[in-house]
Amino acid sequence: MLENRAAVLHGAGDLRVEAVPTREPGEREVLVAIRAVGICGSDVHYYEHGRIGDFVVRTPMILGHESSGVVIARGPGATRHAEGQRVAIEPGVPDGRCAQCRAGRYNLCPNVRFLATPPIDGALTRYLVMHEDFVYPLPDAVSDDAGALIEPLSVGIWANRKAGTTTGSRVLVIGAGPIGVLAAQVARASGAAYVGLVEISKARIEAVNAIGVADEVIDAGAGPDLAALEPDILIECTGAALAVSSGIRALAPAGVAVLVGTSPIAEMPLPTSRIQARELAVTGTFRYANTYPAAIALAASGRVRLDEMAGAHLGLDETATALAMSHTHPEVLKTMVVIGN
Amino acid sequence: MLENRAAVLHGAGDLRVEAVPTREPGEREVLVAIRAVGICGSDVHYYEHGRIGDFVVRTPMILGHESSGVVIARGPGATRHAEGQRVAIEPGVPDGRCAQCRAGRYNLCPNVRFLATPPIDGALTRYLVMHEDFVYPLPDAVSDDAGALIEPLSVGIWANRKAGTTTGSRVLVIGAGPIGVLAAQVARASGAAYVGLVEISKARIEAVNAIGVADEVIDAGAGPDLAALEPDILIECTGAALAVSSGIRALAPAGVAVLVGTSPIAEMPLPTSRIQARELAVTGTFRYANTYPAAIALAASGRVRLDEMAGAHLGLDETATALAMSHTHPEVLKTMVVIGN
Amino acid sequence: MLENRAAVLHGAGDLRVEAVPTREPGEREVLVAIRAVGICGSDVHYYEHGRIGDFVVRTPMILGHESSGVVIARGPGATRHAEGQRVAIEPGVPDGRCAQCRAGRYNLCPNVRFLATPPIDGALTRYLVMHEDFVYPLPDAVSDDAGALIEPLSVGIWANRKAGTTTGSRVLVIGAGPIGVLAAQVARASGAAYVGLVEISKARIEAVNAIGVADEVIDAGAGPDLAALEPDILIECTGAALAVSSGIRALAPAGVAVLVGTSPIAEMPLPTSRIQARELAVTGTFRYANTYPAAIALAASGRVRLDEMAGAHLGLDETATALAMSHTHPEVLKTMVVIGN
Amino acid sequence: MLENRAAVLHGAGDLRVEAVPTREPGEREVLVAIRAVGICGSDVHYYEHGRIGDFVVRTPMILGHESSGVVIARGPGATRHAEGQRVAIEPGVPDGRCAQCRAGRYNLCPNVRFLATPPIDGALTRYLVMHEDFVYPLPDAVSDDAGALIEPLSVGIWANRKAGTTTGSRVLVIGAGPIGVLAAQVARASGAAYVGLVEISKARIEAVNAIGVADEVIDAGAGPDLAALEPDILIECTGAALAVSSGIRALAPAGVAVLVGTSPIAEMPLPTSRIQARELAVTGTFRYANTYPAAIALAASGRVRLDEMAGAHLGLDETATALAMSHTHPEVLKTMVVIGN
Repeated sequence: MLENRAAVLHGAGDLRVEAVPTREPGEREVLVAIRAVGICGSDVHYYEHGRIGDFVVRTPMILGHESSGVVIARGPGATRHAEGQRVAIEPGVPDGRCAQCRAGRYNLCPNVRFLATPPIDGALTRYLVMHEDFVYPLPDAVSDDAGALIEPLSVGIWANRKAGTTTGSRVLVIGAGPIGVLAAQVARASGAAYVGLVEISKARIEAVNAIGVADEVIDAGAGPDLAALEPDILIECTGAALAVSSGIRALAPAGVAVLVGTSPIAEMPLPTSRIQARELAVTGTFRYANTYPAAIALAASGRVRLDEMAGAHLGLDETATALAMSHTHPEVLKTMVVIGN
Repeated sequence: MLENRAAVLHGAGDLRVEAVPTREPGEREVLVAIRAVGICGSDVHYYEHGRIGDFVVRTPMILGHESSGVVIARGPGATRHAEGQRVAIEPGVPDGRCAQCRAGRYNLCPNVRFLATPPIDGALTRYLVMHEDFVYPLPDAVSDDAGALIEPLSVGIWANRKAGTTTGSRVLVIGAGPIGVLAAQVARASGAAYVGLVEISKARIEAVNAIGVADEVIDAGAGPDLAALEPDILIECTGAALAVSSGIRALAPAGVAVLVGTSPIAEMPLPTSRIQARELAVTGTFRYANTYPAAIALAASGRVRLDEMAGAHLGLDETATALAMSHTHPEVLKTMVVIGN
Repeated sequence: MLENRAAVLHGAGDLRVEAVPTREPGEREVLVAIRAVGICGSDVHYYEHGRIGDFVVRTPMILGHESSGVVIARGPGATRHAEGQRVAIEPGVPDGRCAQCRAGRYNLCPNVRFLATPPIDGALTRYLVMHEDFVYPLPDAVSDDAGALIEPLSVGIWANRKAGTTTGSRVLVIGAGPIGVLAAQVARASGAAYVGLVEISKARIEAVNAIGVADEVIDAGAGPDLAALEPDILIECTGAALAVSSGIRALAPAGVAVLVGTSPIAEMPLPTSRIQARELAVTGTFRYANTYPAAIALAASGRVRLDEMAGAHLGLDETATALAMSHTHPEVLKTMVVIGN
Repeated sequence: MLENRAAVLHGAGDLRVEAVPTREPGEREVLVAIRAVGICGSDVHYYEHGRIGDFVVRTPMILGHESSGVVIARGPGATRHAEGQRVAIEPGVPDGRCAQCRAGRYNLCPNVRFLATPPIDGALTRYLVMHEDFVYPLPDAVSDDAGALIEPLSVGIWANRKAGTTTGSRVLVIGAGPIGVLAAQVARASGAAYVGLVEISKARIEAVNAIGVADEVIDAGAGPDLAALEPDILIECTGAALAVSSGIRALAPAGVAVLVGTSPIAEMPLPTSRIQARELAVTGTFRYANTYPAAIALAASGRVRLDEMAGAHLGLDETATALAMSHTHPEVLKTMVVIGN
């Protein structure tokens, strides 16, 4: 039997990298040896607060949901992967039966089982069992790091699909964190005529300029005139009320705002008169659906740059340090936990 | 030459029914003898305040934009109507050239000339000249009153198109004023599985129940549980912040809210967390586009009831009284000014 | 144990009403005592030819897929229905996992199990076991007959959704068989400005006129000028090449043709130059998805008339006669098999 | 007064480069000194046959509609361009009033005036007068050649918009002529996961491989298995019946076929059974609408390569030779006429 270890959250601030059991893959499941896991803001939030809104960590839970690895065993009926196949893991498995699933919105399935969302264990582990339908082969051109980042890239793709980004779109992205950077790259890769990325941190602006992900990186502190950019799409990735409101106000007639960044505040003042007078649409995203093949193709072709975003690599035993990186090293866009089996 | 008279607003509270000039119809224009004009809330607002937001009545302006009449003369090149043809008048003429017009959103044309929006004269007049392309023949089954109400019916159609109302939709309409009542009727006529109409005024509830326009008329004062209705569409016609917010909160996953009712408040607190978690869409309407043929067909077939809404009829000389009806007779859904030529 | 009987097809022309086993409802399944089953053209085709294209009846198969009944027992975990609940049965159960299901197109699921499609048994039986998620409660206003006809009504709804029928649409339906009549009714109930129904059989024209399902029933034999109707939607329900081609040619610019009627011919000549010059769209339907709640609501409210279509009622033992009705009584729109338990 | 010269078609095969009058720019018009004109298949067809279908050259007509130039004079009210501004010219001016224009489909306007479509003169001339709203500024990054090719690039954008190409799409383009090559590039620039370009001419395959416009250039002569590519979008640019039919047959469920290539044959056999069983959609394109800003942005950013396509440059006096290039030099993707003023 494989000796498994994982980064287990026992409560707010109490993370232990410890031995955990592995189970055999069941019907149509595969066993994946995890190689890379990206640290997401939600992992940090669970670590620091033991909860996100109504989702409370009541029993010990393995963190991590951005992951790639290698298939090392297959359960009965699992035929989609050869052993040794490098893969990215889509972390949410919906029920496939409810009204949301039937309508093609499986991200809104009330019965979804999502990695590292209580009480489901996550991917910061040496071995993970997953249904083969949510395990996607990775071509050689996509590294282990990039394979893990297919997950946040999916968020960026979903935001652009909701926005309807297409050839000629003028897209304003607010917030140059990992999601904003990915949303901007996807906008560009979707044919946008203009992509502006607004950020307030000088360190972030520098880091992002070095990668080259937008037509323009805009210093939020310089009081930019966003309306002058005539965006018809806003992808808001900070969750800050002021950014949301001023971003929406900047939109051209019939513009679309997609709220991606989360906020502890449940209600925000939105410019409803403007929404009416210009017939704007405001929507939000919750995870994503049907994005993995698209994300892998974009990554494989180099149309989005993922490896450049992985600014730090730590081992599984250093997960607590990795979870603190957003505070200690804000210039690092994405911290990876590398898992050697 | 025809002797023309019209209800002219000279300033807040200063309405004069007086002689006004008529002009000959120009290239592709027709001269319409107006027969019926519906009083809209915007007419009342201009009358009482001399302005609506940035639109200020600086020079005397004829009120009225919901109108029907009879074509009595045609300018050069006007071929779409025989003289004597009964017609409804679409009050906004866009430029047809700008980016909004080219995209099919002519209601957002920045250069639109819209009746009774300063400085353009309106339809509370005996004779009106209009481009023939915005003058629509009325079948016999549509009365003069109903012909005038094709305009607010267009607002109701547009709200439902923005909402995507279709067979099986569950639609919640808040506000049983003329627009709410029409939006509810259109929802029903579009195949909605359920239409609930929320209203706070007992008199209005009674009036609306008498016409029969929704599956359920809901007393807002009774503290109804709107979420229990599982609406996937909200058409908000009051503009009240509380109604907007609670209506959006009631929406099922992937629901759409269309804000139709206007408010003096430019910003309102909206449940952004809910908008994200359920991937709701919030949009608003500004007038309408490409609705007149649909509206006339719905009216002609009896699938929407317009005549029942016209609760009072006054003459052109009584326009000031008509403009006060919403205060003096709140149970009247729509006041008509009848113009005998 | 319940004594079950069913109409079992043993081969082309060899239908036997005989004893069949019943099984206990499994996990989340319910046992339905069938009350009414509509005879569909596909039942007739299997009966006469033993196959439809690649679907061949190789082992005895119960016919029938348009059905309603009463829930009389529930398997473990089945909670959606009380015993005694009258229900309509959606006959296709998809896998919920494949790319088509995930995209919301569960009607295209390659692994769907569909009643009376080989080798899955159908509903012409006294007792049927079904997953509770595909069993829909019927309100009192929907009769047993109408409950069975929710299935073909779904075909009509799906055709209209594919067509994008909405307020103001001008819809041409060709073929006044059950599907055409239902598609026409749904078009009307979706707000269409005009619905024309084209039919060649005098008996059918008479039958349809008696029900009243369209603005106009057009005699195909009279050489009508379909283009003069300026349809922007064609719903073709005959599958006849000439009807398909002439219907498409009649469409207004940007019109949509939905091919619903099936044909033994795999290829048909379509007016591709016209499709390009007018930017028409031609598509087809295969069953339906997410229609049952909408269909039940339309039926319950009387916006579509189903009972009027059920022109003949026979018993289970008379199934062979029922299957011959389309030949012996072409004026009967829909033949029902009534099953007394 | 400016001395103008133009390539005037007097009848089939009778092209004369001769003096023609220039007129002053009228209200909101500009005078453009033409610099580059791409030769289109329609120019060649008019030259060789004197007609395209119902469009017959009855009086002498200047050819050419893919053009760029420099604004050298402005009529009254023309304010959008400074003199000296380099520009691309959108060749079709719709009426802005008809039902098609109001719906945003101005390419289907029955009253459009389109350059080099009888009886409207085209752009193979030293000086052209055009309404300023259809004259688009070119950034420095877009050459004169590329500016002219914004027109066929628009065709490629429109085909992809009709197809709904987005992140993850798998796109099959048939025909590596200029339109196919541009459609493929746009598909790639729109985020397609895979773009395959099918061509039969070895010379073309070589030319296209040298530019690099698709993931794969497929030799039609090698009997490729197109269905194995699992395309969900087909953009057919040859107009050959066999290509259309086999391309449609290759589509995955819910796939979309866009017919761009024209054919002398008005009807083609299409696989209607497959269209139904897989719920495919087949549509076609006629020119384009609202594409110029998008096209210029794609060209300016290098996401589509236009200059590489311009394989030959001739002078205005050599227009007849330029019109013969498709026969004499089939490996040249696009022949440009360069006009020195």
